[in-house]
Amino acid sequence: MNNNKRSYVSTVPKASPLRVGFIGLSAYKGWAIKSHYPAIQQLPSQFQITALLNKDIETSLATIKKLKLTKATAFDDVPSFASYTNVDMVVISVNVPELYNIIMELLENSKANPNLKYIYSEWSLGKNIEEAEAIHKAAKDRGVQTIISLQGRKSPYIVRAKELVSEGCIGKINSIEIAANGGWYGYERPIKSPKYLYDAASGVSLLSVAFGHTIDILQYITASYFSEINAMIFNNIPHQVLVDEHGKKTNEKVEKTAPDHLLFQGSLSHGNVPVSCSFKGGTPVKKFSKNLMIDIHGTKGDLKLEGDAGFAEMSNLVLYFCGQKMEGSVDTSAGSPGAETMEVYHLRNYNSVVGNILRIYEAIADFHFKTNPHTKLPPKLERQGFLFEGFPTFKDALIVHQLIQRVVDSNQQKATLPVSFETV
Amino acid sequence: MNNNKRSYVSTVPKASPLRVGFIGLSAYKGWAIKSHYPAIQQLPSQFQITALLNKDIETSLATIKKLKLTKATAFDDVPSFASYTNVDMVVISVNVPELYNIIMELLENSKANPNLKYIYSEWSLGKNIEEAEAIHKAAKDRGVQTIISLQGRKSPYIVRAKELVSEGCIGKINSIEIAANGGWYGYERPIKSPKYLYDAASGVSLLSVAFGHTIDILQYITASYFSEINAMIFNNIPHQVLVDEHGKKTNEKVEKTAPDHLLFQGSLSHGNVPVSCSFKGGTPVKKFSKNLMIDIHGTKGDLKLEGDAGFAEMSNLVLYFCGQKMEGSVDTSAGSPGAETMEVYHLRNYNSVVGNILRIYEAIADFHFKTNPHTKLPPKLERQGFLFEGFPTFKDALIVHQLIQRVVDSNQQKATLPVSFETV
Repeated sequence: MNNNKRSYVSTVPKASPLRVGFIGLSAYKGWAIKSHYPAIQQLPSQFQITALLNKDIETSLATIKKLKLTKATAFDDVPSFASYTNVDMVVISVNVPELYNIIMELLENSKANPNLKYIYSEWSLGKNIEEAEAIHKAAKDRGVQTIISLQGRKSPYIVRAKELVSEGCIGKINSIEIAANGGWYGYERPIKSPKYLYDAASGVSLLSVAFGHTIDILQYITASYFSEINAMIFNNIPHQVLVDEHGKKTNEKVEKTAPDHLLFQGSLSHGNVPVSCSFKGGTPVKKFSKNLMIDIHGTKGDLKLEGDAGFAEMSNLVLYFCGQKMEGSVDTSAGSPGAETMEVYHLRNYNSVVGNILRIYEAIADFHFKTNPHTKLPPKLERQGFLFEGFPTFKDALIVHQLIQRVVDSNQQKATLPVSFETV
Repeated sequence: MNNNKRSYVSTVPKASPLRVGFIGLSAYKGWAIKSHYPAIQQLPSQFQITALLNKDIETSLATIKKLKLTKATAFDDVPSFASYTNVDMVVISVNVPELYNIIMELLENSKANPNLKYIYSEWSLGKNIEEAEAIHKAAKDRGVQTIISLQGRKSPYIVRAKELVSEGCIGKINSIEIAANGGWYGYERPIKSPKYLYDAASGVSLLSVAFGHTIDILQYITASYFSEINAMIFNNIPHQVLVDEHGKKTNEKVEKTAPDHLLFQGSLSHGNVPVSCSFKGGTPVKKFSKNLMIDIHGTKGDLKLEGDAGFAEMSNLVLYFCGQKMEGSVDTSAGSPGAETMEVYHLRNYNSVVGNILRIYEAIADFHFKTNPHTKLPPKLERQGFLFEGFPTFKDALIVHQLIQRVVDSNQQKATLPVSFETV
């Protein structure tokens, strides 16, 4: 199986491209211009930006001009943007603390809009589980197809790792270790860095970002959720030294309430597999280990993912595999196990920031234009779960939030807790 | 500081060697002939074997003959061995399940023996904390100096790592990851392997051996005990396949009650340092990571210990260091921090099985013969704690047992538990 190849049929649809209304795209700064925009640019037959909403109309107008978005209309308030009928899909790429209000207002004000079919939000959907649940419910009631940027699932390294696991190439998984460095939360803070990153209440933290993305990826690769977990959360650096634009330390100290370390351990429900995780905040970085390491051991072999940055969802990786590939067959049910083999998988020039998100857009296009005649996806994708096809949804986001909430509970209650959630 | 060098004064004592009564030394099999005996052989001016106790007199007599122990008398019962006055020190190297009865009988029957001053026992002293406590108390009441084979503390790699930490070369430790493979507990069992290794009740397990030694080493390097811990213990392989002498699988399956995986996480009391540990049982071994990995991160640098086997106390290691060495000074209080420097420390032909135990015997000799005029050790060493000098005692063993008991409690109660113990 090769899930990193797109289907052999043409992916250029006969229908018109999906009309995209974008919230939070500025030509001058932010995340969207570095990730979503170049991805959309590579799929001109599938997506076309037709509306732009920013806090001020000037940003939208200037962005339209700069990027030559000739089909796009500028907006500066959610209600009029939401009722604009020339939009099939809305992408929301704003800071996490702002997601809830914008998405809820969008859903509320788009009720009479017949064309809006897709809502694509940045992870983490809401800044806590209550917000995420409310958004999930509102989107379900509104009847739109949701997409969440848990884009690590679309990383070619993650897909390849998942393939090797699903084909039995490392046998039965029997233990996993994860060690990752998540930036920002160290001894120093760049003076221009937004305050909310260091505020425990903002919902953007080592837990939601580094842990959330990474653990979603792990569950996706292993095709298993956790059944029991324990967590210990540390804020050992309650004050950070501000550093100026040139990286020089100032004399100013600022408060940090966001955690700088997470210890997490637990068992995967499928196979009762022990998983050990250490998520470290801040610099200095590790000297003798990669800043991202996911080491998966099985009865027939091992898989190891390594990356220079602690963010598997947006950094380039290397995948090491040693195990048994099935010969003469693409699945585990047939074919005889081959001799032990080794594979190093690395795409030297792969741009993970754009690439993983591009592959989410491709999956949306495949879903919408029904590009793949062999698709097994239902007409409405409530939850991607562990499918290769499709894209993660708000429901998948909610499941990660439920795990994060258990992490918080476990730390607070000093308990090893069972994990369970409705997956339907 | 260089604690791996012995003192400059002569280590050959003017007094007669310590007379050693050895329980469990056979010239033909077992652990002692591979470890204690070659160590003692290298210190002929300090130690001389004068008595030998084995289950049967034939083994003792044959061993005396084979090893040419011309000064040694053979025994086959503890009471007469214990009252033999031509002994200063007794070494007990028998299987863990037998330690308790032998040591207690020895202490009881040696009360009238004026010469017995030292008792040196294999880790883990007792097969559980109750036995360890009883032995510790009995030895204290009897007034002998105790020594325990937590010999990892004497490994030159561990001593060097401890030096670098104590001199501030990696700054303040802020996180630690440990991943180790502990043998025996995998899918297969060699047909000749003793049953007690796979019996949870025997006291010889992944917890006592792999975890016990490694965590003692970690606490020793960092000079800190744990303050809070959580543990999850797995027995995912309740049945093992027997393999014959040639490594070929038989059709026979045998029960295993001993755990095959331990997840452990916690915080060190000094600095509230998060520590993540994964102890994996059995083969197959890891493909892309060493079977022993201790990764210590600090504000100024990192230390990493790696080994091919999961047993830090008896396998050769490599120590990687990157950080700041103090210039012109041997301690942290003076001297200016140097530039970042790197060190790889490896003794290619170091025999860890013999070497670490040899260094325990050296420490005993230094203590007894007062070889080091600058010694800071008291006349009676109740607990080595985190001293470079001296040797681990029954009290140090008891502290590790208390931690292991907390691990068992944490797993059973599904709780994150505080750790505390009397260190005096």
